[in-house]
Amino acid sequence: MRTVDLIQKKRDGKALTTDEIEFLIRGYSTGEIPDYQMSAWAMAVFFNGMTAKETADLTLAMARSGDQADLSPIEGIKVDKHSTGGVGDTTTLILAPLVAAAGVPVAKMSGRGLGHTGGTIDKLESIAGYRVELSKEDFLRQVQQIGVSVISQSGNITPADKKLYGLRDVTATVESIPLIASSIMSKKIASGTDAIVLDVKTGGGAFMKSLDESIKLAQAMVEIGGQVGRETVAVITDMEEPLGLAVGNALEVREAIDTLRGEGPADLTELCLVLGAHMVRLGGKAATYEEARSITEELLRSGAALDKLKEWWQAQGGNPEMADHPELLPTAEYQVPVAAVDDGVVSAIDAEALGVTAMMLGAGRAKKDDDIDLSVGILLRKKVGDRVTAGETIAELHMNSNEPMFTEDMTQRTREVFTFAAGEMPKAPLIYAVVTKHGVERIHTD
Amino acid sequence: MRTVDLIQKKRDGKALTTDEIEFLIRGYSTGEIPDYQMSAWAMAVFFNGMTAKETADLTLAMARSGDQADLSPIEGIKVDKHSTGGVGDTTTLILAPLVAAAGVPVAKMSGRGLGHTGGTIDKLESIAGYRVELSKEDFLRQVQQIGVSVISQSGNITPADKKLYGLRDVTATVESIPLIASSIMSKKIASGTDAIVLDVKTGGGAFMKSLDESIKLAQAMVEIGGQVGRETVAVITDMEEPLGLAVGNALEVREAIDTLRGEGPADLTELCLVLGAHMVRLGGKAATYEEARSITEELLRSGAALDKLKEWWQAQGGNPEMADHPELLPTAEYQVPVAAVDDGVVSAIDAEALGVTAMMLGAGRAKKDDDIDLSVGILLRKKVGDRVTAGETIAELHMNSNEPMFTEDMTQRTREVFTFAAGEMPKAPLIYAVVTKHGVERIHTD
Repeated sequence: MRTVDLIQKKRDGKALTTDEIEFLIRGYSTGEIPDYQMSAWAMAVFFNGMTAKETADLTLAMARSGDQADLSPIEGIKVDKHSTGGVGDTTTLILAPLVAAAGVPVAKMSGRGLGHTGGTIDKLESIAGYRVELSKEDFLRQVQQIGVSVISQSGNITPADKKLYGLRDVTATVESIPLIASSIMSKKIASGTDAIVLDVKTGGGAFMKSLDESIKLAQAMVEIGGQVGRETVAVITDMEEPLGLAVGNALEVREAIDTLRGEGPADLTELCLVLGAHMVRLGGKAATYEEARSITEELLRSGAALDKLKEWWQAQGGNPEMADHPELLPTAEYQVPVAAVDDGVVSAIDAEALGVTAMMLGAGRAKKDDDIDLSVGILLRKKVGDRVTAGETIAELHMNSNEPMFTEDMTQRTREVFTFAAGEMPKAPLIYAVVTKHGVERIHTD
Repeated sequence: MRTVDLIQKKRDGKALTTDEIEFLIRGYSTGEIPDYQMSAWAMAVFFNGMTAKETADLTLAMARSGDQADLSPIEGIKVDKHSTGGVGDTTTLILAPLVAAAGVPVAKMSGRGLGHTGGTIDKLESIAGYRVELSKEDFLRQVQQIGVSVISQSGNITPADKKLYGLRDVTATVESIPLIASSIMSKKIASGTDAIVLDVKTGGGAFMKSLDESIKLAQAMVEIGGQVGRETVAVITDMEEPLGLAVGNALEVREAIDTLRGEGPADLTELCLVLGAHMVRLGGKAATYEEARSITEELLRSGAALDKLKEWWQAQGGNPEMADHPELLPTAEYQVPVAAVDDGVVSAIDAEALGVTAMMLGAGRAKKDDDIDLSVGILLRKKVGDRVTAGETIAELHMNSNEPMFTEDMTQRTREVFTFAAGEMPKAPLIYAVVTKHGVERIHTD
């Protein structure tokens, strides 16, 4: 087999066989196939796409390129969730105890973040005593005993994907749906999950800017799931404004607690009920989405999900008191209100720019080894559709500096994240569509 | 300027500016731009093509990447000729003295061959005493004095093209018309010529297998010539069978002498009259093609072209006696006739396979440092359309070995180069089209 022939085959619009894809990924992993051939192949894929089978083959080849978690000692159907892109994602902190409370085992390995705010693991470090690193045995035992554990991803997961993604980033071959889909799914498959719920963000703050593209990406991932025997459901959700109100690590943990207490922001609560219901159904704890939905609603209403959160934190060394007394979480020294300059209705909030501002406050990392400040961040006081009068607080900065120039800069940046309109402003739907193995269901909830 | 943005621009179907193309080629030459970005760009060009301006910019950037010959000390319009691909090209040996005899200066730097037979320089080494290496000063002086010199290419011509071609070869990005056209034209432009006549081979033995593709390549090159101020004419010629009868170095020199004597094969003679006439017109020695054509015919008929050949050889140290006594040229020890097995009409001669057989006889190089045997090769006795009876000689092997196994193998291979049909076999046209700055003129001469 010659690499140049495989590039040419793809270039000429033909599909590669399983063996050919395996040859490419294995050769690229070992360094036998050089970057310059892989980038030419990736560009050919950009133009000619890949069949569902090729995409699944690529996904499996990348999943097998490194360590693969074995969750088989855990009984039941393990269901994992993944959000594609977006800013400030608090859903994992809520969904893990919610679906565990429904009896679906949650054995999640999560990452630290690079970018706007920390990843789930950084957020969990806001909880005093919480151990993000467990041995494989302790991790499995905890899930067997209480149904949930979230630990820091360790080992060498999908190195072929990492290498290929790095190459795509510098060769203008990122924006290819089969390549994006296989990159995401390879990591999920290597993590050992049986079924997958995807939260595909669409809109301004997301990676996929148009609904059509987001649906295509979702379809590609659902199709891969089917091909490799891991049932997958994708929910296409709005990223025209940030989800919830909090951007920052401890702030998001607090928001998660509020949500499990039934006092969270409406959009975040609704999304967790939807994603959770899909997870509960895939986990075999309900026959239909509707049945699963009433289960998640009841677990939230009854406080069972909040109890599961405390049980989880405690099992993993964290202080469960913090769930009842969120004021114990790391808190920033200064709370600085950001006031509106004029009257108007909020017509858009630039989630991306908001995330960058939070990062500048210290909530995220620009480089891999940057320290992050768990206490800082931004709380939104207004969201799209809200009417605002001049002087009214639209957001609140949580800062550990009161240096005037910096404060002024951050205030100004936060203000500019908001766009105002004169008339009424209808709120964008939270959920646009659900993609399952049966097809695409377009939804407009509000 | 970031390379990834330029790749993306091309990927998205936009044209790069002159500065952007210059940035790419300069960066690639110096090694600042890595192979993996250049191959992704080349694949994007494969799919999206390049505008005429981009192609010209690329050509000039590559032409400037290394040494450039300065032929300005030579008075008159210098016209160079180039054949794209094909097997056994004797035309340079004939055209150089022919157009020099018409007063068009020929200052040609030529290469050694890799493949079927040697290049023009190898062929010229068949002539006792001929010096293929002259100083720049001697080279220019000879052209100034007698109007013609052909020397071995020296120096570092178009290194960017060499590097890019090597990369394209292993990344399935060879078959792109703007990339092929700019590769060919960059070398011609670096060689310092004022005008260019291209012999674009089409058909089985050639790089471009279809007439449409050959015309597109010709148009791209003529367009580049126009953009960079070097008027270019392309003649699309047949490669369904080899041109002339000889494949081998000294054999082709002898065939060139025969042709200048008016006793050459009809197809080779006609093609040289056509290419020569275009060169004479571009060289400003005739107002129209027809006028130029009668000049080349007369120079051949009168023996003036043959006299110019002798003058050229002598000036360059070669023995002009050989032109009157071709038996003085290197001669192989054994002449082995290849006989037809059945009756029939020759319907095709596989030029490519014939070239490979000649190489196996020792006429060409498989690797850069291989020695070649100037005396060996193959003479065709029959061409397409000729009627043959069983036992009749269809070709003659010129060999320096009479080892029976080898002789049998070469005989068999040569026999298999011929295809026979039962009925009549119309000869393919020699010239299909002429492409000038005024457009495409389709021609069917015979």
